Amino acid sequence: MLIIQKYGGSSVANAECIMRVANKIVNTFSNGNKVVVVLSAQGDTTDSLTVKAREINDKASRREMDMLLSTGEQQSVALMAMAIHKLGYPAISLTAAQVGIHSSSDYGSARIKNIDTSRILSELERNNIVLIAGFQGINRYGDVTTLGRGASDTTAVALAAVLGADLCEIYTDVDGVYTADPRIVKNAVKLNEITYEEMLELASLGAKVLHNRAVEMAKRYRVKLVVRSSITEEEGTLIREEVPNMEKLFVSGIAVDDEIARIAVVGIEDRPGMAYQVFSLLAKEKISVDLILQSIGRNSTKDISFTIHKDNLARAMELIEAHRDVLGFDMLSLDDNIAKLSIVGAGMASNSGVACMMFEALYDCGVNINMISTSEIKISVLIEKKYIEKALTSVHDKFVSKQIEFNKGGKQLI
Amino acid sequence: MLIIQKYGGSSVANAECIMRVANKIVNTFSNGNKVVVVLSAQGDTTDSLTVKAREINDKASRREMDMLLSTGEQQSVALMAMAIHKLGYPAISLTAAQVGIHSSSDYGSARIKNIDTSRILSELERNNIVLIAGFQGINRYGDVTTLGRGASDTTAVALAAVLGADLCEIYTDVDGVYTADPRIVKNAVKLNEITYEEMLELASLGAKVLHNRAVEMAKRYRVKLVVRSSITEEEGTLIREEVPNMEKLFVSGIAVDDEIARIAVVGIEDRPGMAYQVFSLLAKEKISVDLILQSIGRNSTKDISFTIHKDNLARAMELIEAHRDVLGFDMLSLDDNIAKLSIVGAGMASNSGVACMMFEALYDCGVNINMISTSEIKISVLIEKKYIEKALTSVHDKFVSKQIEFNKGGKQLI
Repeated sequence: MLIIQKYGGSSVANAECIMRVANKIVNTFSNGNKVVVVLSAQGDTTDSLTVKAREINDKASRREMDMLLSTGEQQSVALMAMAIHKLGYPAISLTAAQVGIHSSSDYGSARIKNIDTSRILSELERNNIVLIAGFQGINRYGDVTTLGRGASDTTAVALAAVLGADLCEIYTDVDGVYTADPRIVKNAVKLNEITYEEMLELASLGAKVLHNRAVEMAKRYRVKLVVRSSITEEEGTLIREEVPNMEKLFVSGIAVDDEIARIAVVGIEDRPGMAYQVFSLLAKEKISVDLILQSIGRNSTKDISFTIHKDNLARAMELIEAHRDVLGFDMLSLDDNIAKLSIVGAGMASNSGVACMMFEALYDCGVNINMISTSEIKISVLIEKKYIEKALTSVHDKFVSKQIEFNKGGKQLI
Repeated sequence: MLIIQKYGGSSVANAECIMRVANKIVNTFSNGNKVVVVLSAQGDTTDSLTVKAREINDKASRREMDMLLSTGEQQSVALMAMAIHKLGYPAISLTAAQVGIHSSSDYGSARIKNIDTSRILSELERNNIVLIAGFQGINRYGDVTTLGRGASDTTAVALAAVLGADLCEIYTDVDGVYTADPRIVKNAVKLNEITYEEMLELASLGAKVLHNRAVEMAKRYRVKLVVRSSITEEEGTLIREEVPNMEKLFVSGIAVDDEIARIAVVGIEDRPGMAYQVFSLLAKEKISVDLILQSIGRNSTKDISFTIHKDNLARAMELIEAHRDVLGFDMLSLDDNIAKLSIVGAGMASNSGVACMMFEALYDCGVNINMISTSEIKISVLIEKKYIEKALTSVHDKFVSKQIEFNKGGKQLI
């Protein structure tokens, strides 16, 4: 089998971790598999490099940030090669430039366009374990790009797709995908299987287990994806397309994203095109907007609220403030004391009353809802950050815990 | 003018140092010059990466070491670009791979073969300050190589040669080339000018101001080279070809190298080819040998002693020990408690009695001589490490201080 493995930053944080991972890789290899490994930067390397850059220039150019940050993954693959050699096995490290992982030129958030397979295949042919720096690419100028936070997952899935790998294993510090964050919800349950679609909603909702674009790409190219622990030998969670006999929870997961902020543009003129004007400003700067809420017009003005990642807050405020004349609003306000709580499940679409049950769970524990957004397989609400634990436990209890009871022979609740 | 500047690791050790250097670069640029800058890794980055590697594998492959170490310079150039942007000037960072600094494949001690100038020239054309990672190259497989310790100097001189630069400035933590190490010898004198040949002897003798291969290359391509301080505004020392009216000291410098060790192969058979056998073993492993001393044959055996860099000591001992059968010696011994003291001067060749004066200076201060080696413009002796300061002061006093006195109107001593 050809197996792609990806290990995150915490799995390679120090010499001891690296040796442990090297053993895992060598095990897979000595079972007769061809192995390609994607690595992230060690521990908090990326963060400490970012701090270094900010000391010098708090508005560092993205090209130079990518030049700086990409060194973290390069160090990881070199160190891992040394560790595997130490165990007496053949390995070679490669940067994105050496492989030929071609990307767009959007420094800091580049997208993989195509990957040359020749160097990888010839190294596999030579019986090498191939170690590839994740998170990075090169653009058409030969300059280094990075693919955005957590994008080593995407590198791994993209490699699995172009190499036609039999399996793509994402090793992380949790042992699979849970119905909710097990650090907060004590009785959260590990899922053995989940569909791409469900995982997509969970990933984009901040479940942090798997990078969103990685799941999208896995779905598109039908890459068999497993999330499992780099420490234990647990089975992990298989992410795959939906099949008839698949284990299926009514609500498969509950996710919290507390890295968001809300901006409210109050008293904007109530005429066509105003929403477009606000959001095109942000789109031009590649600031992603998540939930959007527009109040009903009143006195010829309306209010537009939306949520964005908190890292983009300062820039978004600046941008809108700079266009106050054009937009003609009365007031601009922000709230970064909020979190988004979401329930996800493919079974949701065919069941009515799910939203109502969620609101009831929040009412039960006295948590107020600020904004609501729904899709076919998810419902998100915005709540105050301090209520995260209370709300998560109550909602998890309402949906997942009772379903598990049912699956164990209880009666169906909904 | 097109000026190449090189800043060493201590000059870019932290944010403050980087901003200071950025200001220096910008000054040169805003005086109407085109500027290409070569940088080393920050402070002790290279050492701490080496420690990291050793924790994992104390015999790490050289290819992977180069992959690891080359990240240090990449970080430096990215951070410097951010610093120059902060000052409002245009700059772009480039790795050796992006420039096309092609080298041989001897990982850890590769030699520059040729340099593509197109990317650099097009960035200069765009009015950019071009920042290039020193110390590194790429081989014909596209893999990263490093050029050996301190080789950022070589990168700078090579760039000056291929770009036809008007000047190559090597910025360091001393303000020029001195007649002896000013930290040890209080009355050491800074030289305004020195010939390539003299500098070559001083560099290879461990003066540490300038990398040996850089001086060789500067000599070959007649690159006008200046060594100066990255902190003060002092003039520095100009290294150039000899011209008739050049200021000329009888002995231009005294250097100490305490990073050496001596190996003695005792009781080797006294027949032709034995020296060849010993040194070909070392040559195959690219271990450079410095001083060599062979005793006169006696009882059909002889002794061969030689000095090497202390980093190569363990490997050299291993190699010779492993060939004990072939070489057939009685005993193998080592001494790493030694240092080499050398005097260098182009004026030496035409004056007799120089060696004698040096031996007298050592006798004056009671330092015993272990080995002696001479060339046209230098005399080296091996002494015990603990006598370095005493010997250096005494020799400096004998030659340089008295010459300076003479130059100031005293009488010529020799």
